Amino acid sequence: MDLEKLFKPKSMCVVGISRKNPLNPGRIIFLKNIYEMQVEVFGIHPDGGEVEGAELYTSLEELPKVPELMVIAIPAEKTLDYVQQCADFNIPGCIIISGGFAEIGGEGIKRQDKLIKIANDNDLAVLGPNCIGVYSPPLLDTIFMPTERITRPPKGTVALISQSGGVLVDQFFHKFNQINIGVSTAVSIGNRAVIDETMLLEYFSKVDKETSNIAFYLEGFKPTRSREFLQLARESEDDIIVYFGGLSENGKKATKSHTASLSGNDKILKAALKQNLIVQPSTELELLTTLKLLDILSRKKKPFDPNTVLHGNVAILSLSGGHGVICADLLKKYGLSAVDITQKEQNEMKRFVNPSARDIATFQNPIDLTGSVQDKDIENIIQYLSQIKRIECIIVLILPYTPSLSFQIGRRIANVVSEYKKPLVCFIPYIQKYGMIIEALELSNIPVFHSIEEAVQGVSVLKKRTRIMKFKGNSSS
Amino acid sequence: MDLEKLFKPKSMCVVGISRKNPLNPGRIIFLKNIYEMQVEVFGIHPDGGEVEGAELYTSLEELPKVPELMVIAIPAEKTLDYVQQCADFNIPGCIIISGGFAEIGGEGIKRQDKLIKIANDNDLAVLGPNCIGVYSPPLLDTIFMPTERITRPPKGTVALISQSGGVLVDQFFHKFNQINIGVSTAVSIGNRAVIDETMLLEYFSKVDKETSNIAFYLEGFKPTRSREFLQLARESEDDIIVYFGGLSENGKKATKSHTASLSGNDKILKAALKQNLIVQPSTELELLTTLKLLDILSRKKKPFDPNTVLHGNVAILSLSGGHGVICADLLKKYGLSAVDITQKEQNEMKRFVNPSARDIATFQNPIDLTGSVQDKDIENIIQYLSQIKRIECIIVLILPYTPSLSFQIGRRIANVVSEYKKPLVCFIPYIQKYGMIIEALELSNIPVFHSIEEAVQGVSVLKKRTRIMKFKGNSSS
Repeated sequence: MDLEKLFKPKSMCVVGISRKNPLNPGRIIFLKNIYEMQVEVFGIHPDGGEVEGAELYTSLEELPKVPELMVIAIPAEKTLDYVQQCADFNIPGCIIISGGFAEIGGEGIKRQDKLIKIANDNDLAVLGPNCIGVYSPPLLDTIFMPTERITRPPKGTVALISQSGGVLVDQFFHKFNQINIGVSTAVSIGNRAVIDETMLLEYFSKVDKETSNIAFYLEGFKPTRSREFLQLARESEDDIIVYFGGLSENGKKATKSHTASLSGNDKILKAALKQNLIVQPSTELELLTTLKLLDILSRKKKPFDPNTVLHGNVAILSLSGGHGVICADLLKKYGLSAVDITQKEQNEMKRFVNPSARDIATFQNPIDLTGSVQDKDIENIIQYLSQIKRIECIIVLILPYTPSLSFQIGRRIANVVSEYKKPLVCFIPYIQKYGMIIEALELSNIPVFHSIEEAVQGVSVLKKRTRIMKFKGNSSS
Repeated sequence: MDLEKLFKPKSMCVVGISRKNPLNPGRIIFLKNIYEMQVEVFGIHPDGGEVEGAELYTSLEELPKVPELMVIAIPAEKTLDYVQQCADFNIPGCIIISGGFAEIGGEGIKRQDKLIKIANDNDLAVLGPNCIGVYSPPLLDTIFMPTERITRPPKGTVALISQSGGVLVDQFFHKFNQINIGVSTAVSIGNRAVIDETMLLEYFSKVDKETSNIAFYLEGFKPTRSREFLQLARESEDDIIVYFGGLSENGKKATKSHTASLSGNDKILKAALKQNLIVQPSTELELLTTLKLLDILSRKKKPFDPNTVLHGNVAILSLSGGHGVICADLLKKYGLSAVDITQKEQNEMKRFVNPSARDIATFQNPIDLTGSVQDKDIENIIQYLSQIKRIECIIVLILPYTPSLSFQIGRRIANVVSEYKKPLVCFIPYIQKYGMIIEALELSNIPVFHSIEEAVQGVSVLKKRTRIMKFKGNSSS
C-alpha cells in the first residue's frame, strides 16, 4: 500500500458534499482544501452543480484526471460503492470520515469486514473509517471542523497519530500552538480497519523525511499487532512517544464502548514500552513537556548536545528561596537528584556575585541569588556551574520582577549556554510583560517552561533519552 | 498587637528612600503608594529634599501627624533605631523589608532578638524582617517590585500569607490574574520574628470581614506554634489551605538554608493537616485549582449549593471519546468514581439526543455525545443527569470545534445549572476563539478549567470540602 499518497497527494476528490448545509463535513473539507491548502481538489455530487462558486462533478468518470486520493464523507451504507470505485480507477488512497462501521456493532461489523476485503484485495490504502483524517501542511487538511473553530499548529517535525479525533485536535493541535512546536503530519486512525498505528510507525520512521519524532495517542494496540509495533519502535531512529488512555479500571470500561479495543494490563504495558525505548508520558502536562523537549533536540540549531549523558544530577539556580524549595521538592518524583556543592565551590561562587546579593544569597543547591541579583551574577554562576562535570543539567528559575534584573537576561543566558553547551532548562512565569525574555530564550532553542513542575519534567525527559540513546547506539543524533 | 493597622492604615511613613537610585526599594514603595494606593504617605530622609516631586521629611518629629504604620527599608544595622521610634511615638505597626537578621546567622540573630524584645515590650505589631510586606488593595502596597514588572491580582476574598516573597508574587499574584480570582490581603511574613502565620490565621479568620478563604505558603510552622495554628484552623469558619514546600529530602536541605525552619515528618504533618480540616494541595496546579474552586463557592452568587454532599460519585459528559477516557482514567487518582448508568437510563437518554448523534453516541459513563452533538442535546442530558440522585457531580468536557455546537452553549449550560443546582465542573480548551463560551460560564460562577486534570481536581476539592463541612457543622455555609 502506498501510504505516501494519503499524506502527500497531488490531487484528490471529495464525495459527500452538501449543497445546502454549510456545516456538512464533506463540504467543509472540500472548500477548506480549495481555499487553504495546496492539493488540487475535485468535488463529486450525483447531481452536479456548485457550492460557493466551486464546480461539482457528477461522478469519478467526469473528472479531468484520476485523483491520487478520495475522501469519503457520506452515510455508511453508500461508502463501500465508492471504495470499490477507488479500486476500479486505481486510486491508491482513500480516507473514510464516515462512522457506522465496527464501532456500532452488528451490521457495522459486517460492513467493516467487507471494507477490509476490498482494501486488501486491491492494495488500497484505506484510512478510517470513523476518523477525522489527515492534516498534512501545506498540502492537505481533511479535518472537517470549520477553520474559525479550531487552531492549526504550524509545520514542524512531529508526526501525530491518534485513535481519538478529539484528542488530536484538542490535546495536540491547540496545545502545540501554545508551546510553539509544529507538526509534520497528523493522522486520525479512527477504527483503523486497514491502516493501523504499526503501519504508520513504519511509514513515518522509515519513509517520511520530514518527521523527527512520532507521537501516538492510543487506547490499546490493534490486536495481534503490538509485537511488531514494539519491534519497530525499538529499531527506529526517531523518538517514539506513546500516550495511553484507558489504562485505569474506569478508563478500560470507557474504551470498550469507545473503540472496542482492550488495553490489557497497565504494568505489563508500561514495562513493554520502556523495554522497547518508547517514552510514555503519564499526564497531559507531561505529554506536552516531552514533545516540546524532544522537538527542541531535533532542531538544526541545538542549544546543547542532544546526546549529552544525563543520569539525573542537577543544579537549581533560583532568585527566590521558595521557588528553589518547590523545585527541589519535585526532583525525586521525576527521578532526579540535587548535586552536592562543596564549601570550596560555594565560596568561589560567592566571589562572582555583586556585593548586595553576596551576603544574603545561599550557594548550596538550590542556589538562591535572591531579589538583589543582577544579570551579570546569573551569567557568572551559570558559567561556573557549567564547568562542574558532575552537574549534568542546570534548572534556572527566572523571576523578572526583581528590579535589578534587565530584560536582556534571556539573551544573556542563551549566550552562556551557546558557549558552554551545558544542558539547561528555564522556568519563567508566562506573563505578557516577560514576552521579550521568553522570546530570546525560545529563539535560541533553550527549553522554557511556565511552571516549575514542567521544568523538572523537561529535565527528566533528558534523562529518559540518555537511556534510549544508550540502547539505540546514539543513532538518533 | 493591633494587626489591623498593618493592613488598613489611614497613614504611613517610609524610611529608606534613595533620592538617586530609581530602583531603590524604599523609593519604589514610597512612590507606588502615593500614586497608586489610597493610604496617606509620608517619606522620611535624614537630608530632606524630594523624589519625583514628592516631599521628604527629615524625621518623624517633622511629620504633620503621627502615622499608623512605618515601613522600614534601610540597611539592617540602622533598623532598630527606627523600630524604637515607632514605640516611642506610639505608632502601632511596622513592616521591616530589610534583610540582615536571623537568616544570616551570627550578628543577625542577636539583632533579631533585640527586635523581638522591642516589639513585645511595646506591643508593637512588627511584620518581617526580610519580607516584601503587604498588599492590601486599594489601600496599601509595600511590594517593592516596580509596577511595570509584576501583575497584581484584583480585590477579592482570599487572604494570602507566604513565607516566601517570590512565591507570593509569582505562584499567587501572577496566577490569580490568569484564573480570575482576587485577594483580600496578601502578607509576606519573611523571618516572622514577631508576627507569624498563627497570629495571621487568627486575624483573618476572626477579625477581617473581607476574607473568606485563607491560603498559606509555608516551609514549616514556627517552632512551638503549630498546635495553636492547627486548633485555630479547625475552629475557623473560613476554608484554610496550606501549601507546604520543603517536605522532601532535597526540599528540607533547601529550607534549612532558606528560612532556618524545620518541616518535620511529611506523613505526620499531612495527617495533622487533614485532621484539623486544612486542605493541603500537593502541586502548583492543584493549589490553584483548590483556590479557584473554594473562591467560587464563597461568592454571593453561587452556581450550586456549596454545602452539597459529595462522596465522589461523578458522571462524565464528553463530546469526544478520547477526552472521556482520559477523564475516566484520572478519577481514581483523585479519590472519585464513575457512577454506573443503568441500561434503562441509557435508553432514556438516547431519546433526548438528535437523530444523527443518537446512534453513534454512547450513554455509559463517560457519556460520549460525539461531534454530531447539538446545544439542545447537552442541555437535555445535563437536565437528565441532574435528576439522578446518586450522581453527585457532573464533569462536562466541552470541545467547541464541532460545527453543530453554537457559542451559546456556555450560557445554556449555565441556565441548566442555575435551575437544577447540581454541582458541575467544565473543561474547555483555553483558546481566544472560545472566549465567549468561557466568559458566559465564568459570569455564572460555573467552575471552568482548561485541562482535564484540573477539572477532576476541582471535583476532588468538593469532596474534601464535604468532609470539612461535616466536622465544622456546616458553619461555613
